[in-house]
Amino acid sequence: MDIKGFQFSAVEAAIKKPGRKDLALIFSEVPALACAVFTVNAVKAAPVLLSVERIASGSAQALLVNSGNANACTGEMGMVVARETSHLVAEILAIADDAVQVSSTGVIGVQMPVDRINNAVPALVTGLSSGTLDDVAQAIMTTDTFPKMEARSCQAGGISYTVAGIAKGAGMIMPNMATMLSFIICDAAVEPAFLDAAFRKAVDSSFNAITVDGDMSTNDTCLIMANGMAGNAPITAGSPEADGFENLLHDVLLSLAKQIVKDGEGATKFVEVRVTGATNNADAKRAALAIANSSLVKTAFFGQDANWGRIFAAVGYSGAAVDQSRLSLSFNDVCMAREGVFAGGDAEARGTEVLKLKEFTVCVDLGLGNGTATVYTSDLSHEYVSINADYRT
Amino acid sequence: MDIKGFQFSAVEAAIKKPGRKDLALIFSEVPALACAVFTVNAVKAAPVLLSVERIASGSAQALLVNSGNANACTGEMGMVVARETSHLVAEILAIADDAVQVSSTGVIGVQMPVDRINNAVPALVTGLSSGTLDDVAQAIMTTDTFPKMEARSCQAGGISYTVAGIAKGAGMIMPNMATMLSFIICDAAVEPAFLDAAFRKAVDSSFNAITVDGDMSTNDTCLIMANGMAGNAPITAGSPEADGFENLLHDVLLSLAKQIVKDGEGATKFVEVRVTGATNNADAKRAALAIANSSLVKTAFFGQDANWGRIFAAVGYSGAAVDQSRLSLSFNDVCMAREGVFAGGDAEARGTEVLKLKEFTVCVDLGLGNGTATVYTSDLSHEYVSINADYRT
Repeated sequence: MDIKGFQFSAVEAAIKKPGRKDLALIFSEVPALACAVFTVNAVKAAPVLLSVERIASGSAQALLVNSGNANACTGEMGMVVARETSHLVAEILAIADDAVQVSSTGVIGVQMPVDRINNAVPALVTGLSSGTLDDVAQAIMTTDTFPKMEARSCQAGGISYTVAGIAKGAGMIMPNMATMLSFIICDAAVEPAFLDAAFRKAVDSSFNAITVDGDMSTNDTCLIMANGMAGNAPITAGSPEADGFENLLHDVLLSLAKQIVKDGEGATKFVEVRVTGATNNADAKRAALAIANSSLVKTAFFGQDANWGRIFAAVGYSGAAVDQSRLSLSFNDVCMAREGVFAGGDAEARGTEVLKLKEFTVCVDLGLGNGTATVYTSDLSHEYVSINADYRT
Repeated sequence: MDIKGFQFSAVEAAIKKPGRKDLALIFSEVPALACAVFTVNAVKAAPVLLSVERIASGSAQALLVNSGNANACTGEMGMVVARETSHLVAEILAIADDAVQVSSTGVIGVQMPVDRINNAVPALVTGLSSGTLDDVAQAIMTTDTFPKMEARSCQAGGISYTVAGIAKGAGMIMPNMATMLSFIICDAAVEPAFLDAAFRKAVDSSFNAITVDGDMSTNDTCLIMANGMAGNAPITAGSPEADGFENLLHDVLLSLAKQIVKDGEGATKFVEVRVTGATNNADAKRAALAIANSSLVKTAFFGQDANWGRIFAAVGYSGAAVDQSRLSLSFNDVCMAREGVFAGGDAEARGTEVLKLKEFTVCVDLGLGNGTATVYTSDLSHEYVSINADYRT
C-alpha cells in the first residue's frame, strides 16, 4: 500500500494479559486534517471524552489506541490515564498533546494499567520506523477473528492518492454511530468542509447501516486523517474530483463495515436486508433495522428456516407505516410472499435453498411509496451466546 | 377452583400435527362484560382483527382459541376462516357470532386447516360439560414447557368471588402490549368503566413489564371476561371493594407474567431489573427495558459474569437522561459500582456469587430524580438459539 506520510507501530503492553500486541500508534509526518464521529451513548469512555474535546480543532497528527481495556466507567482516573499516556506520546513525538487522538476497546469498568502502558510507549514510538497498518489492525482486535483492512487509490489532477482504513468490530455492532473502532487515513489534500461532509455521508451508508446485536458501545469511534502529502490541489465540493473521492471513501468504509458483519460474533451468515416501497427513506431504514435486529429473525437465519412471517412481524413493529395487505418479500430471487400472504408453489423449498447459502439478500417491499434502505446483518448463533457469556474470562 | 358460570373444553384438531389438544373453548353461561388489549404490531393476525371488531360491544360470552397456527399473514382467507370457525361455535352454543372472541398462536404465514377445525368443533362444545381451565391452559401452549395458571379469591359485600387466568408465552415476549396470549375470567360483577381501567392498569404493571427477546408478535391478546355470577353488587371505582379487586387482578396478572418469564425460551435465570433515581418514571422504564433487552447483558447473565459495565452501556443508549458520574448498581445487596465506577473491594467475587443464583435483582440508580420502574427478564442461552432456529421443524 502506497500511502504517503503515515507511519505505524504496535507493541505488547500486556494490558489485559501478555502474549499479543495491544497498543498501537498511527502517526502522520505532518499535521493532518481530521474529523470523527463518536458513540452517542450517554455513557462515554474517557478516551472518547478526550478525543471529542481535541477533534474540535479539526486537526490531528497521531492516534494512540489500545485493546484489552475500554477505559470506560473509570471516572476521573480514566481521564487522567488518557491524558497522561497521550502526553507521553506527544512528548516523544514533539507534537502538541491536543494533536493526539486516543481510543480504547475492551472490557468496561476496569482501571487501565497505566504503568504498563507508559513503559511500552517509548518502544511504541521507536517502532514507527518499521511498522505497518496491518500491525495496527492486528493490535486493535478483541473478539475479532481476522484483522479488517481496506485500501483504494484514485487520481486527482493527475496525482494518485490513497484512502486506507482499518476497523475492529465483532460484538456491540449497531448503527446510530459507527459502533466500533475504525481509523481511516488518506494522503490526499481535501478542502476541510468537503472532507467533513463526505466522511459523514460515507459513515451513514456504511457503519450506520450494519448491525450485529443491537447493542451500542461506550467507545465507538470512526476517525479520518487526511494529510495532503500526495501533493494534489485540495479536492473541493462540486469539483470534477469530488465524486471520485466520495466514491472511494464510501467503498473503503463499506468494505470495512461488511468485514465487521462477516466477522460478527458467531456469525455464520451475511445478510443484506433491502427495504423498498416505504413511505420515505427513514421508514425504510426503520423497517430494515427491525428485521436486522430481531432475535427471532436472526435465529431463523441461523437455522436456515425460510420463516418469512417473522420478518413481516418485525416490519409490523418497526414503527414504519405498513399496510399488511401490500407487503411482499423475497429471498434472493425467490418470492416468498406477495400482498401479505404466502406466494405458494415451490417457494418454501426454493427459499430454504437460498437460506442455505453463506450470503443472501432479503428484499421486503412495503408497497406504499419510494423510500428505500439497505442494511447488513448476521445471524444469531450458539457461538454468539458462548462468546458473550464468557467474554471476561 | 370455585369460579361460577364458566365452562371449559379442549380437543385435538391436529392443527399443526396430531398428538395433543390444540383447540380450546371458554364459555360463560351468561353474557359477560369483556375488555381486551391486543398487539400494537401493524401486522395483525386475522383473529386479532376480528376480535378487535367484536370487543367494541364491551361484551363476550365465549373464547375460541387454537395453538399450532397463528392465522397471521393469511390475508382474506384468514379472515374467512376466523369468521367461519367462530360462527360454527356460536351456532351450536346458540349465541351471536359477535359474542365469540377468537385467538390463535403458532406459526405465521400458513393457512389454517379449516376442515380439521370445523370437524373438531362439535366435540369441543360437547366437552364443555367436563373440561377444566387447566385443559385450556395446556391446549394453548406452543414452546411453553409448563401451563401457566393463577387463581385468587376475595370478597365484595360479604360475597366471595374469584379471578382466574391462564397464559402462554415463551418467545416473542416484549412489552408494548401483552405480547402473548392471556385469558382472565372473573365471576364478580364489576362496573364496566372500572373494569376497563383496572384491567389496563394491571396489564401495564405485569405483561407490559416483562421481556424475553424484544420481539412483538402479530397475535398478542389479553382478554378479561367478568360474568357477575358470584352475585355481588357491581364493584365500582372508589368503593371499599375497589382496592381489593384491583390488587387481586394485579396479583393474578403479575403471577402469570412472571411464569412467562420463568418459562422464557431457554431461560436459566429470572432477573428483576429495578431502576430508581430517574428523572421520571418513563425514563426509568426506558433504562430498565434497555437493560432487560440487551443481548450482551443477557448473555452475561447466562454466563454468570458480573459484567456491570455492559449494564451501564445499555442504560447509556436507552434514551433516558443519564449522568455517568452518578450511576450506581447492585446485584441483590452487593454494590458493584457507585458514582459511575467500580465499587472495589470484594465486589467482583460477591457479585459473581449473586449471579450464580437462579433468581436475582439488578438495581440501577441513576441519581437524578424520583422516577422508578421494575421489569422482569430472563437470560439469553444456547437453548434460546436452538429453539428458535428449529421452530418450524
